[in-house]
Amino acid sequence: MKSTDVLIIGGSAAGMVAAVTARAHWPEKKFILVKKQKDVMVPCGIPYIFGTLGTSEKNLMPVDVMMEKNGVESLVDEATSIDTEKKIVSFASGEQIGYQKLMIATGSTPVKPKWLLGADLDNVFVIPKDRQYLDGIKEKLGSTKNVAVIGAGFIGVELSDELKKHGYNVTLVEKLPHILNLAFDADFAEKIHEMLTERGVNVIAGTGIKSVMGNGKVEEIELEDGKKLPMDAVILSMGYKPNTELAQKSGIQVDESGFIAVDEYMRTHTPDVFAIGDCAQKRDFVTRQRVATMLASTACAEARIAGMNLFNLHVVKTFSGTIAIYSTALDGTGFGTAGLTEQRANEEGIESFVGVFEGVNRHPGSLPTAHKQIVKLIAAKHSGVIIGGEVIGGTEAGELTNVIGLAIQNRMSVNSLLTMQIGTHPCLTASPAAYPLIKAAEQISNKMLKLMK
Amino acid sequence: MKSTDVLIIGGSAAGMVAAVTARAHWPEKKFILVKKQKDVMVPCGIPYIFGTLGTSEKNLMPVDVMMEKNGVESLVDEATSIDTEKKIVSFASGEQIGYQKLMIATGSTPVKPKWLLGADLDNVFVIPKDRQYLDGIKEKLGSTKNVAVIGAGFIGVELSDELKKHGYNVTLVEKLPHILNLAFDADFAEKIHEMLTERGVNVIAGTGIKSVMGNGKVEEIELEDGKKLPMDAVILSMGYKPNTELAQKSGIQVDESGFIAVDEYMRTHTPDVFAIGDCAQKRDFVTRQRVATMLASTACAEARIAGMNLFNLHVVKTFSGTIAIYSTALDGTGFGTAGLTEQRANEEGIESFVGVFEGVNRHPGSLPTAHKQIVKLIAAKHSGVIIGGEVIGGTEAGELTNVIGLAIQNRMSVNSLLTMQIGTHPCLTASPAAYPLIKAAEQISNKMLKLMK
Repeated sequence: MKSTDVLIIGGSAAGMVAAVTARAHWPEKKFILVKKQKDVMVPCGIPYIFGTLGTSEKNLMPVDVMMEKNGVESLVDEATSIDTEKKIVSFASGEQIGYQKLMIATGSTPVKPKWLLGADLDNVFVIPKDRQYLDGIKEKLGSTKNVAVIGAGFIGVELSDELKKHGYNVTLVEKLPHILNLAFDADFAEKIHEMLTERGVNVIAGTGIKSVMGNGKVEEIELEDGKKLPMDAVILSMGYKPNTELAQKSGIQVDESGFIAVDEYMRTHTPDVFAIGDCAQKRDFVTRQRVATMLASTACAEARIAGMNLFNLHVVKTFSGTIAIYSTALDGTGFGTAGLTEQRANEEGIESFVGVFEGVNRHPGSLPTAHKQIVKLIAAKHSGVIIGGEVIGGTEAGELTNVIGLAIQNRMSVNSLLTMQIGTHPCLTASPAAYPLIKAAEQISNKMLKLMK
Repeated sequence: MKSTDVLIIGGSAAGMVAAVTARAHWPEKKFILVKKQKDVMVPCGIPYIFGTLGTSEKNLMPVDVMMEKNGVESLVDEATSIDTEKKIVSFASGEQIGYQKLMIATGSTPVKPKWLLGADLDNVFVIPKDRQYLDGIKEKLGSTKNVAVIGAGFIGVELSDELKKHGYNVTLVEKLPHILNLAFDADFAEKIHEMLTERGVNVIAGTGIKSVMGNGKVEEIELEDGKKLPMDAVILSMGYKPNTELAQKSGIQVDESGFIAVDEYMRTHTPDVFAIGDCAQKRDFVTRQRVATMLASTACAEARIAGMNLFNLHVVKTFSGTIAIYSTALDGTGFGTAGLTEQRANEEGIESFVGVFEGVNRHPGSLPTAHKQIVKLIAAKHSGVIIGGEVIGGTEAGELTNVIGLAIQNRMSVNSLLTMQIGTHPCLTASPAAYPLIKAAEQISNKMLKLMK
């Protein structure tokens, strides 16, 4: 029987980063990473293979190269059971591998809801991180015309825009009142909705899908409001569920939401077994509630924490909980969100103050590359602690969102932002006199001052 | 005699932001702002009026609009003396204004070194924040061909590139071994040097100017190494000196470097008198040494701190000292620097470790908008505290530099960066598995681990 010091199950972002990070900390240990498929997709790049990238070939994550470079043995196989007493994993090929430390990074699978009539018709697709399946969608979509994308989270929005670019007639359907409803407040979501519409996507929000109809394959969809739309294909982007069957049947504790229970260092309740990425339990940084955040960036952060602390606590973690930080783009317009939205804060019973500043991402605004920039900050009403932020701007929006994320992680208050030091440049940022984070913080500070009078 | 609660001398970035900020905190007070000229230039936009913007008209800062909007009286006049006992300022027009609180934001003036032979010839220019003078340069440069820019700080580099764009034959001369020598380490500066050269600017580093020669007007320059170059015009961008004569002759304490002495809340040693921006003394955040950082972003940060704390300490400052955070761009390539360079740390006797990560600002890198991205982090060797960082990338480089700035301001260590949460997106940022700040931090962490073995 084969044996190793460190065994990693899963070769997407979390598995890969865990292997590389742990290897740097424990170079004397032997590592094996087992992935289900040879080719691994860049997870966030998947919507772009349908348009901008044009092919899955251009969206490969260089896992094998990275493993070889870092001296990690990489195998293609599927784990079928874990004996946590004997510390042995069995694989579909019949192989067994003994481990000293095990990292489970089995990811997530797209949801195909059971209540959805017609979900098994031909040309109804989901978006897994599976190259062959994705190539299959591209092929089958081929000559079709009318495509419905169901669920307007980030993947749904990106996919709709990319398919539209590629010439399809795209209808994006969202059950919640607004697209991107969990990531952005209504005021921001409406702006993105408007942009998508201008770009030619038919956006329907506030009513979900009821059923898919057709003789063998998709011909029509029916919405909850009774409307029927002729359709050639349906892509479901209705969320993902953690892949935790393997853990569950091996006696590793899984919570009631289906995530593997972990502590702050990504240790499961079973000795020497870690879980990271989409399959691992997360708690929100602010509310301390369990959340189902599934982001490659979060997965990588967890992988680094687990990797650095595999055999003992090398790097003490300086924060607790997950800050959901997302961004996306429609060509030159970037959108980002970090932490809680105002709506979510409200739902969680957190009284908040918000500041919204509209400006431009260049100074003077007469520069030819100038783009409108809007920043919303959300702070706890009484302490002024920043709990969230949203950004619309140019392509700087991604890193500007990271500035907000870092402010949240450092538990900064609006007052700290007011005195914050920044760098600015005409061709790269807003003016120092109208830097959007500071101007939004000022609005909150003024509301707090009034409250105190 | 006129009198006011708050009198602000100077109407550039510092004066304007101080007025707006203080007004929000003390809405019941009367404010007057006095500026020397009607038109105020966006300071960082000045190099761009010679190329991209094309005209000074497009680079106006809307000071009058802002003052009116905020209920601040705005006058054009020049302060000639301050009676700090009677609290009265006298102006060139003969007017006198009594004040309760005075803010000095008199800025800086370009240096024209006395040792430079021929500095008073026609067609030798400096770059003040003076619209009329700048328009005059543009006019006089008109049909000339060969232009020398002396001094390769940010303004020199930007100006050279813009003049080249406009068709001039530009030679950029820098006495120090590298261009941008104070902002970037040699490895980064060389890359920018190379880019400038590719764009057609003649860059000469490591030898300064000795004299300007000509019969009445510029015909030739001679460098320290003896080389002579035919030249039609010379623009000196050899630094700025603080405008503190008014303060000095009014008995307000000015330090030996010519800056008005201030405390952390920008209060001078004279009761009820504040100084902000280029004319005010600064100390480095890390080294605690006095520094001559002159940045609009720093000026605005100081203006906000003074404005919020004018009558009493409304907003407690959460940090001490100035972090120099700069960025600049050559079209789609952005450069940024925050805190200390490795060289500067070395000169200050700070032992440091650096990490340099080269990647791309998109993921997968096959995306059509992908741009090379290089990040260097500098950390104190024994504590791992981040003391500086440098960035080359796309236009996101400005905000990415602000992420580093915020890490420095929060006194984060490389370990905190290793566990940092970020947001990433294919079209906006590097991959979460190869986020440059974290990868650079990993290199430093690995060096520290080795040190501890």
